[in-house]
Amino acid sequence: MTGMKNKQEYEEELRMGKGGFTLPGESGYEELTLKMAEKWGADVIRDSDGTVLSDEITHAGYGIYSTICIIRDHNAWAKENQDKLQQTFLCTPPQAAESDTLTIGLMDSFFAEQFRINDSAESLEYWEIYDRTTNVKIDNADWSYDKEKGSVSLSGIIPFHKYTVSFLAYRIWEEISMYNHTTNHWDKEHLMQIDPRYPETQEYLLGWMKHWCETHPDTTVVRFTSMFYNFVWIWGSSERNRNLFSDWGSYDFTVSVPALQEFEKQYGYRMTAEDFINKGQLHVTHMPGNAKKADWMAFINDFVISFGRKLIDMVHSYGKKAYVFYDDSWVGVEPYNGRFQEFGFDGLIKCVFSGYEARLCAGVDVPTHELRLHPYLFPVGLGGAPTFMEGGNPTLDAKKYWNSVRRALLRAKIDRIGLGGYLHLVEGFPDFCDYIEKVADEFRLIRSFHDAGEPYRIKTRVAVLHYWGSLRSWTLSGHFHETYMHDLIHINEALSGLPVDVKFISFEDVKNGILKDVDVVINAGRAGSAWSGGDAWKDEELVTALTKWVHEGGCFIGVNEPSAVEGYDTYFRMAHVLGIDEDTGARVCHGRWIFETADPEHLIPEGAGVEAKENRYLTDGKAQVLLADGGKPLITLNHFGKGLGIYLSSFQVNLWNTRMLYQLIRYAGGEGTSGSYMTDNLYTECAYYPESKKLVVINNSDTEQTTTIPTEAGACTVTIAPYDTTFVEIR
Amino acid sequence: MTGMKNKQEYEEELRMGKGGFTLPGESGYEELTLKMAEKWGADVIRDSDGTVLSDEITHAGYGIYSTICIIRDHNAWAKENQDKLQQTFLCTPPQAAESDTLTIGLMDSFFAEQFRINDSAESLEYWEIYDRTTNVKIDNADWSYDKEKGSVSLSGIIPFHKYTVSFLAYRIWEEISMYNHTTNHWDKEHLMQIDPRYPETQEYLLGWMKHWCETHPDTTVVRFTSMFYNFVWIWGSSERNRNLFSDWGSYDFTVSVPALQEFEKQYGYRMTAEDFINKGQLHVTHMPGNAKKADWMAFINDFVISFGRKLIDMVHSYGKKAYVFYDDSWVGVEPYNGRFQEFGFDGLIKCVFSGYEARLCAGVDVPTHELRLHPYLFPVGLGGAPTFMEGGNPTLDAKKYWNSVRRALLRAKIDRIGLGGYLHLVEGFPDFCDYIEKVADEFRLIRSFHDAGEPYRIKTRVAVLHYWGSLRSWTLSGHFHETYMHDLIHINEALSGLPVDVKFISFEDVKNGILKDVDVVINAGRAGSAWSGGDAWKDEELVTALTKWVHEGGCFIGVNEPSAVEGYDTYFRMAHVLGIDEDTGARVCHGRWIFETADPEHLIPEGAGVEAKENRYLTDGKAQVLLADGGKPLITLNHFGKGLGIYLSSFQVNLWNTRMLYQLIRYAGGEGTSGSYMTDNLYTECAYYPESKKLVVINNSDTEQTTTIPTEAGACTVTIAPYDTTFVEIR
Repeated sequence: MTGMKNKQEYEEELRMGKGGFTLPGESGYEELTLKMAEKWGADVIRDSDGTVLSDEITHAGYGIYSTICIIRDHNAWAKENQDKLQQTFLCTPPQAAESDTLTIGLMDSFFAEQFRINDSAESLEYWEIYDRTTNVKIDNADWSYDKEKGSVSLSGIIPFHKYTVSFLAYRIWEEISMYNHTTNHWDKEHLMQIDPRYPETQEYLLGWMKHWCETHPDTTVVRFTSMFYNFVWIWGSSERNRNLFSDWGSYDFTVSVPALQEFEKQYGYRMTAEDFINKGQLHVTHMPGNAKKADWMAFINDFVISFGRKLIDMVHSYGKKAYVFYDDSWVGVEPYNGRFQEFGFDGLIKCVFSGYEARLCAGVDVPTHELRLHPYLFPVGLGGAPTFMEGGNPTLDAKKYWNSVRRALLRAKIDRIGLGGYLHLVEGFPDFCDYIEKVADEFRLIRSFHDAGEPYRIKTRVAVLHYWGSLRSWTLSGHFHETYMHDLIHINEALSGLPVDVKFISFEDVKNGILKDVDVVINAGRAGSAWSGGDAWKDEELVTALTKWVHEGGCFIGVNEPSAVEGYDTYFRMAHVLGIDEDTGARVCHGRWIFETADPEHLIPEGAGVEAKENRYLTDGKAQVLLADGGKPLITLNHFGKGLGIYLSSFQVNLWNTRMLYQLIRYAGGEGTSGSYMTDNLYTECAYYPESKKLVVINNSDTEQTTTIPTEAGACTVTIAPYDTTFVEIR
Repeated sequence: MTGMKNKQEYEEELRMGKGGFTLPGESGYEELTLKMAEKWGADVIRDSDGTVLSDEITHAGYGIYSTICIIRDHNAWAKENQDKLQQTFLCTPPQAAESDTLTIGLMDSFFAEQFRINDSAESLEYWEIYDRTTNVKIDNADWSYDKEKGSVSLSGIIPFHKYTVSFLAYRIWEEISMYNHTTNHWDKEHLMQIDPRYPETQEYLLGWMKHWCETHPDTTVVRFTSMFYNFVWIWGSSERNRNLFSDWGSYDFTVSVPALQEFEKQYGYRMTAEDFINKGQLHVTHMPGNAKKADWMAFINDFVISFGRKLIDMVHSYGKKAYVFYDDSWVGVEPYNGRFQEFGFDGLIKCVFSGYEARLCAGVDVPTHELRLHPYLFPVGLGGAPTFMEGGNPTLDAKKYWNSVRRALLRAKIDRIGLGGYLHLVEGFPDFCDYIEKVADEFRLIRSFHDAGEPYRIKTRVAVLHYWGSLRSWTLSGHFHETYMHDLIHINEALSGLPVDVKFISFEDVKNGILKDVDVVINAGRAGSAWSGGDAWKDEELVTALTKWVHEGGCFIGVNEPSAVEGYDTYFRMAHVLGIDEDTGARVCHGRWIFETADPEHLIPEGAGVEAKENRYLTDGKAQVLLADGGKPLITLNHFGKGLGIYLSSFQVNLWNTRMLYQLIRYAGGEGTSGSYMTDNLYTECAYYPESKKLVVINNSDTEQTTTIPTEAGACTVTIAPYDTTFVEIR
């Protein structure tokens, strides 16, 4: 049977190992810094945006992280070199012509503090004016630019058509500091961002980096925040619509005249403004890309690696390590494209709210993986709610964040954790300090289990199938709260803590034979999105390969509008496998199969359920409806050859649906809906480490839970406090 | 001021005029028949399906209607001429191949009592086998038909692609009698339908018609039910999905080998099975048609007119009139295509549940317009609820149906009304008999007002814009309960009783300049539907013409997904006029305008509201949001030049929304939200007949209502019983 160590034994054991913790130090609070470093088992002390470390701290025997944002904080140089600021293409909103002439003010809808028109001669060559009624570019002879007014005048155009101007603009306020500045109502100089694309900038930055290294002898790790190009964040002129566009994974902010020219030389064709502007929609990561975008991404990645490597080499040459922060100016870094090792980074740091972000960090091939946990040591948290101030409950916040992330840490090894912000804020919150101590100890214990050997996983191997494949493993494009409207982020979050092998595959991967290593394929999203796949589904080779694979025993799980594309007999190209399809209007006169709901295998736990979608219909009536909302099928199961098609009309992550997804995956893989190392209480989950014979059981709920787990040594029953973790030795 | 006649005065007045009423007589109930004829003011007595009229009835001095279904009730001839039964193309459900051969049973999914495979040599020439994975027709050499098994075997095909067989089938059970037979569990011979396309059938039918006329000397009106081809109604083999397809306006049931051959000769190209099958979706009226379908419809219309005319001429030659029933086998009759007069019909009869159906009838250019009211004199009504039996309340049913239809009768003249069914059923329901007497009197009074002159209408002229234009005026494709999922049927129903000039226009009409006679254009429906328009919106000429017209003062009202088509900067092509658009996924990273809801003009009555739709966003933030649901705009108003764009996320007909639509139309036309001959109580409506100075006020609710109406002679206030009608003389 199982032998449970008592709590004291474990607590002693985990106290023995310290380290793996990065503490934000604060000058003026030296005593507190060193006390907390001791309490939380820190081995590294960092500065934060707005804090400095005194000698007393840097000389206390800890490793020292220093954060640098390489393209920011050079305002003196930037002012002298305003033609080397970073840029982007912008496109004016479509404006209808009332006659055959029209004048369009370029900056009318954009935030004047963020952008300045680049009207140099070489920039103007890239400007484009489109008739958006026909989507045809108008001749350069038909427009002129008024530099004084910042406007473009069109003539000889068609009345009542609508027109846009795509132009190049300098970005004159670095976006992350713009956000912090604006949010915190700072009153200081705007920081600009310089573009390393220019040789002069490179020369300046290499000199600056050298000087920095020489003047920071105590720093052991340089934390780059991040490399050169921020994710796209375009602000508008109106306070009613400040945030015009924001995409964590898009490349619009990497553009400049020399980059465009260099690209043309290298790739043999010219990228146009429209290639970026895309009818004013821009290219969001949530939509399928195209070959030109792929070329541009590769081109930028090439550059970021080549110049990035020079900076990293220099850091190494001073005996320091180089870590990269996987956010902010991370564009062009691409830790999942197979070239990341070329940078030579020693570590990667990810700020995490969610389990999938922990997996995103853990999955990168780099020596050290570090998570920056929440809450930050700031007076207010996300969305402005109080944290370290009156009305805040940072301990509860920390428990909830840890609860989200912990289940992912059970599945994949993370090397370090840490906090950020102003350490002095914790002084009034001793509970918080105790809780972080506990979290740090739990983290180190779990890490030690990983060190001994991988956790138990079921045999069934899952692949998430979408346009980007492994390039966008785990994340879609940013944090959960930015992407919650996509089914797939919910699925990724559910998967992040399941004892299942998960990979992310592209449609090309399927055609190249990857399905031989896969038992369950998940395709989840809105029609036309990168996550569902859009036009990729017109490829009969893809459809045929998946069909054959299911027929021979695979399981295709489709969510919302999987494999959807117009032009065929069914909207879902995998409808024959799923037994369900969506009527886009042509089938409104077709009858609907009457069905009864039944779940004889108990695949759907009590409490599980997903949102209904309109116009879903059973194709041949053979699919079994496991769950329905009125007449709307929510979850169906269809046998196809030796395999299965499972359909869910949507997916929202919660404890019940996470358990449901796990049960469906187990069922698809022939492993039954319960078994070894699976809790019998869905409010709890567990991980088992066979090498160390350690079982970790977590309570994901805010109430005490009791659960029994079948193990190789018999059933193990534990009772766990709200959000708490229990460690059991199986012997 | 207004002078109100007292109720007695009016009742006397309306008793003076009788007639315009068709009574269903019943043999064996002669006394009842004549009593009811007297009470209800009937001038005509009809038979019904399942009833006969005795000499005592036919010789009582009334006009006599006799119903004939010209293509049915010829089973003796049909049995001898089974190759001249009517046909259709059918397509098997897609079936995935597990190897390079596949056998498909043609009839597996179809109702064996409705269809029989037509496997004649000339039929087989039209069969088509499609690879539905690629949507490519497979070579005739790769399949063979097994007559014994009724199956098609394919060879040399691609494993795991899916295949369909499109084939010709005889329809061996006339669909309307099949429905009645099955629903009422009759035990009698199935009636077949013969196809007048064959010369032999024509010869037989002309002989039959002649004999019929000679043996029915008492008949004054032959009611054709209807001409030759039923609307499409395909039944399936499974009781779980009996109703595979049903479309009141589609032409699939007009097909036959000689028709296909004749078409090819006449039009110079061949219609294929796929032209009808359309990937298994068939061509529903709710989706845009195409040039081939238009040709086929014209071709069938030609034939129905030419042979129909012969039958009608014969009826006329016996001194009888010919009316046509505007339902059932009406396909190819097309009373709205400008050629209907060529038939020579004397009248048109429409069975009505709704106001728009009354307008559909009233709008046809034919001498006599007659409505068949509900409830039918049957024990059970629609959906099987009791009517003329225990538990039924036929009087209340009649009130509700009259309430739906009456408001349309106020706007457009109908010549006759009537009932159908088994008269003896009314015996136990004296209330019902009294209520019908009242309805008949009201009807005749309203008709007399129309005779004196047209009712008052506001100046604002409305055009409903969709793919079919005037061809599908008022109706979409059948009754309200069959098309309730479309916004436009709700709008048509609301419009049917408003004092507004309404026309139905096509996209071609817009390009041909019809907008000069229009003040408000309504485009309402789901993207891609015939009602929204689909690919028609790719036509820049259309978009430009509408844009210009709005800019110069027109009002474009868009509902749900108006003008929606993929491929442009906005999904709604009229987004620049509406100020609102739908994000189909590409704009998920774009910010949204913060808005406040305000309705300073009080356009939205208390209680009005429409269902929210997902992903609608304000384009430039200038549209005024009149109504919202959480953050979702429901109704918006956008000034564009001198004109307006009004958007509604959907439309559901009810008293509140009907009033809202009227107010929006008035506002768009500059007529304010109240004015002359407009009730101040939305539970009531009124119609004013300037020539006769008669004001009719109706209570559309189930409670007593008081309302005041501004008239040319001052304010008029009336109090009306539930569902009741009040007549006022303005003097």
